[in-house]
Amino acid sequence: MKKKLAAPLKGIIVPLVTPLIDNNTIDIEGFKKLIEHTISGGVHGIFVLGTTGEFASISYKLREELIEQTCKIVNGRVPVLVGIADSSFPESVNLANKAAENGADAVVLTPPYYFRLGQTELLEYLKHIMSQIPLPLFLYNMPAQTKISFAPETVKKISEIPGVVGIKDSSADLPYFKQVQYALKDKKDFTFMVGPEEIMSDFVLAGGHGGVNGGANMFPKLYVNLYNASVNRDFEKIKELQQKVIQISSTIYKVGNYNSSFLKGVKCALSVMGICSDFMAEPFHRFREPERMKIKQILKDLNYQELL
Amino acid sequence: MKKKLAAPLKGIIVPLVTPLIDNNTIDIEGFKKLIEHTISGGVHGIFVLGTTGEFASISYKLREELIEQTCKIVNGRVPVLVGIADSSFPESVNLANKAAENGADAVVLTPPYYFRLGQTELLEYLKHIMSQIPLPLFLYNMPAQTKISFAPETVKKISEIPGVVGIKDSSADLPYFKQVQYALKDKKDFTFMVGPEEIMSDFVLAGGHGGVNGGANMFPKLYVNLYNASVNRDFEKIKELQQKVIQISSTIYKVGNYNSSFLKGVKCALSVMGICSDFMAEPFHRFREPERMKIKQILKDLNYQELL
Amino acid sequence: MKKKLAAPLKGIIVPLVTPLIDNNTIDIEGFKKLIEHTISGGVHGIFVLGTTGEFASISYKLREELIEQTCKIVNGRVPVLVGIADSSFPESVNLANKAAENGADAVVLTPPYYFRLGQTELLEYLKHIMSQIPLPLFLYNMPAQTKISFAPETVKKISEIPGVVGIKDSSADLPYFKQVQYALKDKKDFTFMVGPEEIMSDFVLAGGHGGVNGGANMFPKLYVNLYNASVNRDFEKIKELQQKVIQISSTIYKVGNYNSSFLKGVKCALSVMGICSDFMAEPFHRFREPERMKIKQILKDLNYQELL
Amino acid sequence: MKKKLAAPLKGIIVPLVTPLIDNNTIDIEGFKKLIEHTISGGVHGIFVLGTTGEFASISYKLREELIEQTCKIVNGRVPVLVGIADSSFPESVNLANKAAENGADAVVLTPPYYFRLGQTELLEYLKHIMSQIPLPLFLYNMPAQTKISFAPETVKKISEIPGVVGIKDSSADLPYFKQVQYALKDKKDFTFMVGPEEIMSDFVLAGGHGGVNGGANMFPKLYVNLYNASVNRDFEKIKELQQKVIQISSTIYKVGNYNSSFLKGVKCALSVMGICSDFMAEPFHRFREPERMKIKQILKDLNYQELL
Repeated sequence: MKKKLAAPLKGIIVPLVTPLIDNNTIDIEGFKKLIEHTISGGVHGIFVLGTTGEFASISYKLREELIEQTCKIVNGRVPVLVGIADSSFPESVNLANKAAENGADAVVLTPPYYFRLGQTELLEYLKHIMSQIPLPLFLYNMPAQTKISFAPETVKKISEIPGVVGIKDSSADLPYFKQVQYALKDKKDFTFMVGPEEIMSDFVLAGGHGGVNGGANMFPKLYVNLYNASVNRDFEKIKELQQKVIQISSTIYKVGNYNSSFLKGVKCALSVMGICSDFMAEPFHRFREPERMKIKQILKDLNYQELL
Repeated sequence: MKKKLAAPLKGIIVPLVTPLIDNNTIDIEGFKKLIEHTISGGVHGIFVLGTTGEFASISYKLREELIEQTCKIVNGRVPVLVGIADSSFPESVNLANKAAENGADAVVLTPPYYFRLGQTELLEYLKHIMSQIPLPLFLYNMPAQTKISFAPETVKKISEIPGVVGIKDSSADLPYFKQVQYALKDKKDFTFMVGPEEIMSDFVLAGGHGGVNGGANMFPKLYVNLYNASVNRDFEKIKELQQKVIQISSTIYKVGNYNSSFLKGVKCALSVMGICSDFMAEPFHRFREPERMKIKQILKDLNYQELL
Repeated sequence: MKKKLAAPLKGIIVPLVTPLIDNNTIDIEGFKKLIEHTISGGVHGIFVLGTTGEFASISYKLREELIEQTCKIVNGRVPVLVGIADSSFPESVNLANKAAENGADAVVLTPPYYFRLGQTELLEYLKHIMSQIPLPLFLYNMPAQTKISFAPETVKKISEIPGVVGIKDSSADLPYFKQVQYALKDKKDFTFMVGPEEIMSDFVLAGGHGGVNGGANMFPKLYVNLYNASVNRDFEKIKELQQKVIQISSTIYKVGNYNSSFLKGVKCALSVMGICSDFMAEPFHRFREPERMKIKQILKDLNYQELL
Repeated sequence: MKKKLAAPLKGIIVPLVTPLIDNNTIDIEGFKKLIEHTISGGVHGIFVLGTTGEFASISYKLREELIEQTCKIVNGRVPVLVGIADSSFPESVNLANKAAENGADAVVLTPPYYFRLGQTELLEYLKHIMSQIPLPLFLYNMPAQTKISFAPETVKKISEIPGVVGIKDSSADLPYFKQVQYALKDKKDFTFMVGPEEIMSDFVLAGGHGGVNGGANMFPKLYVNLYNASVNRDFEKIKELQQKVIQISSTIYKVGNYNSSFLKGVKCALSVMGICSDFMAEPFHRFREPERMKIKQILKDLNYQELL
């Protein structure tokens, strides 16, 4: 039986990092702290096994464990969304079943990311997989990793498949996402969520439903407050909070020379803040001391205690 | 002597199409009509020889003629910005001199677009060319065509070169552009303009200065009104006008299967509206009858007369 | 204990397709036929779970079953190489262990393909994983899918890690691969294999060790004969066989408009030839009747019986 | 009147660098030395205003001067090919006329490189421009710079336009280029030339007609000898010379961290060898002392005097 989610879903959904002790062990204490930290910060939902959660790097065993733990710890306080993206169709279905068994509220799916698909194949793929998915599903557009973007017309067709309830766009291409919204303008219940936190406020001001923002791992209140200010069109507040958001994205996410500096920065900051381990799953590695020192300084410059 | 432009420059700058009779002849009557159409529609500035103006396809002789004609026809009513992008440094300088001689207000420059540059080379290039440019200069970020994006730190350094007064971003990557704004947060006079019209309103609401929007060739009032509504935070109005803007971008710019459907759509619509010729410079060609019929229908569906 | 492989390994390694009855069932009869077909055609080795084998689309259960079956059916007649690429480090290790348990001769690894790595991370990744891999390992360069190419200097450093015995390059960029060979010119035992069959002969003439060529699923003798002719510098023969190879790649692999037309073409041809099922794992689907008719005609035009 | 070129044209065509004193002045003495150096080294043709010649960075005035000077200095000793690529159709035609007036033997054309074309537009473009080009024309495939590759079927159609006599491929994708050759297998007079010097020998062994190799600026004899050895299938010789070619491409072209290190390396080496100035047109700049020292050392390690 499919559970009832708000339609559309609104607010800040935090794409949790996956605290690890080593490649095969979840940092459970850290994970609990992180969930309490974000829920008490007011997030409107929790998303595990997304890109920020390093889902692709984690073993199947750990992914299942994470699903169980998340559902147990959250215990219905906010909706739980589970990433089921995989290059293999049957493994995605397995993860969706595991999510349903544990009481998750919805699943989130990128296209398969090894082979390159065309739009027709993408549509077929969604049709086929939806017949085996026991939970509401959000599309997850992430062309930088998956090598394909959902065309607006494809999203429109997919939105007519029962069970597909929304889309999260991490393309950073807001003109594109507005065309998706336009193509689906008659679907009043469909959820539109934006990935990049730098434009969450703009997106909400323009009628979008919220953001799936990695920074909410560290500073859930900041993003929740910015979301609320945007809903309320409180421009004084927006300006103040938006400045912090851009400061974070221009500093914490830019340490080091890596494509993965966003992930490393968030995990390192969480570790500095005493919330969880900064161990990263292969092929990434945590910041070494010099980068960690920079993150410490950045947090100090941010007066980060005030953001909590 | 460098002329005085508002700093920052604000509002809707229309990147004019280049009306042509054939590859070697400007449609002067059409060009005049187009300029009157956009000025009477309220645009805050005119930009010739941009991407929408097919600058790269046009001979040098015609580029110079366009500069002369534009300055003469506009005759100081609004600022005139001239695109001087070229793969060759000396040719860009020549165009800038020609712009100055004819009384243009500023020039606009993309990086050279044949070779791939690095950020250091980009900075050096700007330093060297600025010493020979007699007018204020706007950077023009257009990575899809030039194969390089100005990094925020590079823009910051370039902004310290005398004469560089602003940037137009056509990357469609608003999170990126916000990081550029953040990097230059102390430059109060620096102009930030956004290319994609789908996000002009969002950008202005968030403190941006305006848009360089191709759709303003057809419907200058629509974009000017949306700009004003955004400055005034009139959300009722924004919603109504924004819907039209996305409708235009989801229809007129999507006819045919071409990378160039935006350019072809605008020129075809202008021809249907009786403003100017739809001849396109090689390597593009105007829409044939079936596509033209679609554009006619789209204009009818838009009730386009009401947008004028 | 690591088994003894020829060093360098030479000849034609066939990257087997994975015959399927449905998403969860191997077409075992077809798989047996395919293995007998290729071994009796003279291939010098068998590679399962490569790109041609749709490894990324297949469930873990099926991947393990394929490893078992391959080792059992081949039964030591030729070396068995097993693809262990995965976005998750621990899953790659699991597959390597499974390969070792079943008596495979070597494993083959692309970089993780969800996240984008840098060269330093790539080197670290290889160092870490090699400490847990119980079999000789071939690198597999496949930038179109993995979004990273092994830089020549990175290959050089990786080649010094014990257990790394060779590289297969599917970049189609032969100038690049020659620079890799040059960087490792002192490693006399290191194996260099080229993916694209169109250049296997050229590569062998220039001193390369052979090819991992998908077309050998259909016509093992053709590629083996071309390999031998290249080793023997029999230019008459090379010219004749090379013509067939390009004819195949210009026809069978070009039916339909898909990025995946190579995979679909090979599986369809094998089905037409009565060797195995053409069922494809999601997200791909077998050719429908019109495309199948084209493949039939192409096979007829090729006089394919003579190639067997 | 179109001049008579060998059909197909065979051998080593040297894409000359453009020796400069400053952005607006050709280093004529150096240019003469360079031409004598390459002709006495045995090159089979000279190509000015190619990528290696920094054509896109040079003013029109200088391009015309180069055409004049080249034809005058070469004086019919070898065929002269002139690059006429430009983003603007009329400017390409102008350059072709200038080439014809000065007695050049053929022209060479990449697609326009600012806008992105489709294959149909590319074919139309070639049809239209060929009606105005007074000399035989070679296509120049350079997708890294022009953002489009000539599809094999497009080349086939273009090859039927009168005046199109050959293609130079700089994609480094030899499997692709073999498919082009296959598509045109009935055009016995059509010339196939390969850009990357690392695979010139392989290409000639497989029946290709030669190479347009930048390294021939420095060491014309090396590439000419390798070409001859390849025609004669002298594998002993090929191996020895090929090793030098890869050594050059792995050293001289890899100094510095730049996309343009090939161009900078060649010009710097020519300057160290006393042939011509290493001044580079904007947006590039010559190597500074540390890089120049490296080039000196590399030349010494190559025993470069023996290559002359």
